[in-house]
Amino acid sequence: MSSITPLGQRVLVKRIEADEVSAGGIVLPDTAKEKPQEATVVALGTGGKNEDGSDFEFSVKVNDVVLISKYGGTDVKVDGVDHLILQESDILGIVG
Amino acid sequence: MSSITPLGQRVLVKRIEADEVSAGGIVLPDTAKEKPQEATVVALGTGGKNEDGSDFEFSVKVNDVVLISKYGGTDVKVDGVDHLILQESDILGIVG
Amino acid sequence: MSSITPLGQRVLVKRIEADEVSAGGIVLPDTAKEKPQEATVVALGTGGKNEDGSDFEFSVKVNDVVLISKYGGTDVKVDGVDHLILQESDILGIVG
Amino acid sequence: MSSITPLGQRVLVKRIEADEVSAGGIVLPDTAKEKPQEATVVALGTGGKNEDGSDFEFSVKVNDVVLISKYGGTDVKVDGVDHLILQESDILGIVG
Amino acid sequence: MSSITPLGQRVLVKRIEADEVSAGGIVLPDTAKEKPQEATVVALGTGGKNEDGSDFEFSVKVNDVVLISKYGGTDVKVDGVDHLILQESDILGIVG
Amino acid sequence: MSSITPLGQRVLVKRIEADEVSAGGIVLPDTAKEKPQEATVVALGTGGKNEDGSDFEFSVKVNDVVLISKYGGTDVKVDGVDHLILQESDILGIVG
Amino acid sequence: MSSITPLGQRVLVKRIEADEVSAGGIVLPDTAKEKPQEATVVALGTGGKNEDGSDFEFSVKVNDVVLISKYGGTDVKVDGVDHLILQESDILGIVG
Repeated sequence: MSSITPLGQRVLVKRIEADEVSAGGIVLPDTAKEKPQEATVVALGTGGKNEDGSDFEFSVKVNDVVLISKYGGTDVKVDGVDHLILQESDILGIVG
Repeated sequence: MSSITPLGQRVLVKRIEADEVSAGGIVLPDTAKEKPQEATVVALGTGGKNEDGSDFEFSVKVNDVVLISKYGGTDVKVDGVDHLILQESDILGIVG
Repeated sequence: MSSITPLGQRVLVKRIEADEVSAGGIVLPDTAKEKPQEATVVALGTGGKNEDGSDFEFSVKVNDVVLISKYGGTDVKVDGVDHLILQESDILGIVG
Repeated sequence: MSSITPLGQRVLVKRIEADEVSAGGIVLPDTAKEKPQEATVVALGTGGKNEDGSDFEFSVKVNDVVLISKYGGTDVKVDGVDHLILQESDILGIVG
Repeated sequence: MSSITPLGQRVLVKRIEADEVSAGGIVLPDTAKEKPQEATVVALGTGGKNEDGSDFEFSVKVNDVVLISKYGGTDVKVDGVDHLILQESDILGIVG
Repeated sequence: MSSITPLGQRVLVKRIEADEVSAGGIVLPDTAKEKPQEATVVALGTGGKNEDGSDFEFSVKVNDVVLISKYGGTDVKVDGVDHLILQESDILGIVG
Repeated sequence: MSSITPLGQRVLVKRIEADEVSAGGIVLPDTAKEKPQEATVVALGTGGKNEDGSDFEFSVKVNDVVLISKYGGTDVKVDGVDHLILQESDILGIVG
């Protein structure tokens, strides 16, 4: 099986399809505004350094369900399944 | 019940509908300019670090009533109720 | 009575109407250029930190009469009276 | 008599009319390019801090004759006389 | 044989043609969005310094298979073969 | 005679007319691209501080012949002669 | 013979004409994308300081053959020969 290690402060996430969203859970609004979407964190990036020279630490961890902007990041397929690579700073929040 | 922990210096707020605004309270101006709106802080973000390496501290706390720009942030529904995730720096002020 | 505490380095000011400007005082020019306007400082923001980690200190204080750009900031009504929330750095000067 | 204390690194200047320019002195070019103009420094701003935390020091002083861009800054009238508030960094040079 | 040492934090990569992508591996999505592409790292740049004065260290190494944006970087031919010079920060992730 | 002390990291230069350029010297290209022009440094600015708090030092000195972009800076006349005030960082090089 | 010392972190380079490119060497791609071009480093700039106050050191040296973007920098003629002044950071790589 293939794997991707995102570079720097990026993360690899797998979108959760709308019909997988749990009842009573987070539902996407149907307005025309930018819509966030749920996704599962699959892999954290290589991290690197903060501007003050200290090690960057991710605020999310693998298997976290996160809210992401619908239009950010770059689509990639891993073993035929849609994934997304995006900067951690583009994650809006952690669900659960 | 679902919950969201905003990432970094973001906060999760719940809009206060116009007819909920107390008499004699803060009323939105009816001009065409950018209109602020009242909202209640529901959750603070994970915070993280300031540029000088110290811990970021939020100036607002849960249950604060805040003024926010009408057009900023990203709409999300939590258990069917409209909420908004926005950067704390986009909050104009605290009411009360 | 309602009150607003501006967030960060913002201040809350109340515009001084043109006919309130004292004779011999600061008068707005009638050119088409950006026009400054007099206002009274009503409340200082929560302040926060400078980039070097020291506490931010406001250069204006409550009741100062200040010159502000006519087009900056965000209008809010407090108890039915027009006010404005703006960054202190958008204040041009202190009158008096 | 009214007075203005500019905020931060701004200065208050009074334009010198073209026919006040001394013979053999600095004359504005008549090209279509951005034209500098002579002005007298009337008041220095509140100053504040440099990015490294040290006190900001003005390079100009009151009564200096300076060259300023014709289109920068904000016009204000002080006791009926045209003045200009601008960032010190927008002053091109000191004359004399 | 010719060689190129990229300057600073750039890397030299050689694209992997689509039909070289291993079965079950990373496949480019067929949407209209920005498409990442696989490439092999051929040479690392001269590196240089981080903003805090410490030595910059590459997160990728020669022979790594990486995902790159299809539209970033600058094409160069080395001994008649298409290569690409790009900033390491424009590499999305490491495959494998 | 009048004089100008440029503010900060600016310099005052006097253009060298095309027919003053020495034979075998630097000749402006006749393409449509941005054209550099020779000028003599007449006065250095007040200097000021670098971002790290150390004193800024000019790399050019009075009487240096320099290459400048044809379209940068601000024209001023000193005693009826065309001069130019520009940031030292907009000087391309020193001739000779 | 005339010479130019580039200011700051700029370098002076002399383009290598296409028919001078060695067989089996770096050949410019014939696509419509931004095309790099070979050039020889003729002179390094005055250098100056990095943001952390340390001395800037060039990564290229005189006589290096470098790849440069076809559209960057400013053309100058030195003794009638086309040269180019550009920031070192706009050099893509060193050939050989």
